[in-house]
Amino acid sequence: MPHRVSSLTLLMLLILCAPLLASGIGTRVFVVQRDTGSLAVYDYQRREVLPVQITGLGNMRHATMIFTPDLRYGFLSTRSGKISRIDLDTLKADGAVQASQSSIDNAVSHDGRYVATAEYAPGGVTIIDAETLAVVKRLEARVTRNGNAFVSRVTGMVDAPGNRFVCVLIEGAEIWIIDANQPGFPITHRIPTAVDNPYDAMITPDGRWYVVGHLNSSRITLLDLQQPQAGPRTLDLRDTAYDREAPVKLPHMASWAVAGERVFLPMVGEERLVVLNRRDWAYEGSVPLRGKPVYAVRSPSEREIWVSFSGEEDDAYIQVVDTETLAVKRTLRAGRRIYHMDFTPRGSHVMVSANRDHRLLLINAHTYEIEDSQEVRSPSGIFGVWRAFRVGL
Amino acid sequence: MPHRVSSLTLLMLLILCAPLLASGIGTRVFVVQRDTGSLAVYDYQRREVLPVQITGLGNMRHATMIFTPDLRYGFLSTRSGKISRIDLDTLKADGAVQASQSSIDNAVSHDGRYVATAEYAPGGVTIIDAETLAVVKRLEARVTRNGNAFVSRVTGMVDAPGNRFVCVLIEGAEIWIIDANQPGFPITHRIPTAVDNPYDAMITPDGRWYVVGHLNSSRITLLDLQQPQAGPRTLDLRDTAYDREAPVKLPHMASWAVAGERVFLPMVGEERLVVLNRRDWAYEGSVPLRGKPVYAVRSPSEREIWVSFSGEEDDAYIQVVDTETLAVKRTLRAGRRIYHMDFTPRGSHVMVSANRDHRLLLINAHTYEIEDSQEVRSPSGIFGVWRAFRVGL
Repeated sequence: MPHRVSSLTLLMLLILCAPLLASGIGTRVFVVQRDTGSLAVYDYQRREVLPVQITGLGNMRHATMIFTPDLRYGFLSTRSGKISRIDLDTLKADGAVQASQSSIDNAVSHDGRYVATAEYAPGGVTIIDAETLAVVKRLEARVTRNGNAFVSRVTGMVDAPGNRFVCVLIEGAEIWIIDANQPGFPITHRIPTAVDNPYDAMITPDGRWYVVGHLNSSRITLLDLQQPQAGPRTLDLRDTAYDREAPVKLPHMASWAVAGERVFLPMVGEERLVVLNRRDWAYEGSVPLRGKPVYAVRSPSEREIWVSFSGEEDDAYIQVVDTETLAVKRTLRAGRRIYHMDFTPRGSHVMVSANRDHRLLLINAHTYEIEDSQEVRSPSGIFGVWRAFRVGL
Repeated sequence: MPHRVSSLTLLMLLILCAPLLASGIGTRVFVVQRDTGSLAVYDYQRREVLPVQITGLGNMRHATMIFTPDLRYGFLSTRSGKISRIDLDTLKADGAVQASQSSIDNAVSHDGRYVATAEYAPGGVTIIDAETLAVVKRLEARVTRNGNAFVSRVTGMVDAPGNRFVCVLIEGAEIWIIDANQPGFPITHRIPTAVDNPYDAMITPDGRWYVVGHLNSSRITLLDLQQPQAGPRTLDLRDTAYDREAPVKLPHMASWAVAGERVFLPMVGEERLVVLNRRDWAYEGSVPLRGKPVYAVRSPSEREIWVSFSGEEDDAYIQVVDTETLAVKRTLRAGRRIYHMDFTPRGSHVMVSANRDHRLLLINAHTYEIEDSQEVRSPSGIFGVWRAFRVGL
């Protein structure tokens, strides 16, 4: 049966298909626009903000976005507990799941089939099918301590080798390893941490160590994911990183940078970067900085750490630290209230969100020049699809 | 004006669009089918060879495929000197350039705009525009030695930080650094190697060191790309890696594996893997193997090296070496005449081409089980799009 199709319809069909095929997804990043609960899309190769806005995504404080290995979808988890799926071909929201009242972290399994979120309220883990969006498992973070049963908040969700998820219970003070290969997603290991109140965790880029920070403590918990049955180690950074009695406040783990044989920690409330040895976490030195650091981001070459700062006096600046000499090699003024920095995959540029200036900046990582500056409303996190190809993001 | 469009036409339009959008490019790899000058496409997540064949690509011996950072295109260079562009959305050939009579290597600039090929005949470098396919520069590898001018073959083409290309002249015994930021693509450095007859080169994964091997020599040339003006260093591996007088034949550099602080070399004609220290290239030890190794491939965790072998007795086997203990931890029989191995980006699986068996295998990197086996005619190189996000591929 023939159909009558107007030129306009055909044109619209072409328009609907054309922009998707006109440019690939590899050089595009999603930028969280915090105040409006939306995402902007920036193409760093074409140096343009695309004429699309992905809206209605929820409370975007600490929102993180991850990508499926086939590069079909991005998943955004929010403090509203809503997980939104973004279609990477159409750059549109393509379904959502209300996983909880408040989520904090998420991860995609290595087989690409599942997305796991760590939740504050109600405390637990929700695992959804990346294709159908069905909730395939809900793990309540119920723990018993001194005879009292309660439900704990969960954080630090990462993907780990062996198609596993790893997370940590805040009040429960327990690391969970979840096996996404087995039906029912069993928690194969529940490993108590020696210190209370884990507040955050990360996995080293090689996928081996799960590193947990504890609230109001200078101690960290280290778990070797290759042999979790051997149990965690506890290290007191005060023994190594500090030579004084002051209280220690560790930064959020997303701000730690592992480069070569070293780990760089932006010390909360102090004007320095602490340098630890990656093998034994021993103190190697401190790098004095112009202000109080917030984030430390490593270059793909692992030769530089880019540091952002808190406080109006300093938050427009970036300092670049050489990972070999441990010296500040450059201080840049970029834009006010820098919230996020991310390198392009081969390290040519750094994308920077200057929240107060409503600017997304593209800085040449070799000349340190600002090569592009685009208006983006209240920009925060910057997420490129290459995260799909890295462990623990 | 309305158009009359048949149901069939509409259906075909849908069919043309649908498969492209039905699945992303992230888990698909291109597999060189050497005997037929064609590419097969395998999706390791869906575990299927797609019903497409990309044909007419030329002599596929040592053919390599690279990808633009925006994931729009793949570029395949061949021994016929033909560069074919593959559209990653349609999975079809989308133009070709006859760059030379024989090409060996290629690279994409970090800004995504240019593809450079190293050529044997006529010896030189051709740079093409990735979008228009126009030849934008042809650099003849003309050198003068002892008063004689001649044209040299070129090999070892890599992308390097700073939007540069680096390659080496075989008869010319000269490293070239080409600046893709400047109009005219000037050769900013022509650095003679102390040893004659470079035959191959590689760049370390951090983008810092350009490492050149020399024919019938145990010496290698090392150039620090952060300070090329300081000149190259020459190291004799016989001083460190060997304690005897036997002639040394170094393997092709694509077969070297850099993992953590170590470099693993499959020794040509010997039944061992040589282990060097990455910092000073000093000998650290040898790993005895079941046969003569061909390729050493590191896992993304950098904890394992997978080794393939030459000779009918051994070429169906893979040995897995632990990079910390330096012991063989596993020996697998996979399929006859293994030509290529590549890890999936987060290290869950290894794809293996068993050329004589016409099989592409998917091996679980944690259980070492063969989880999928597909018929692919005369498979050789396996190339995933994540190469777009790594330096020097």
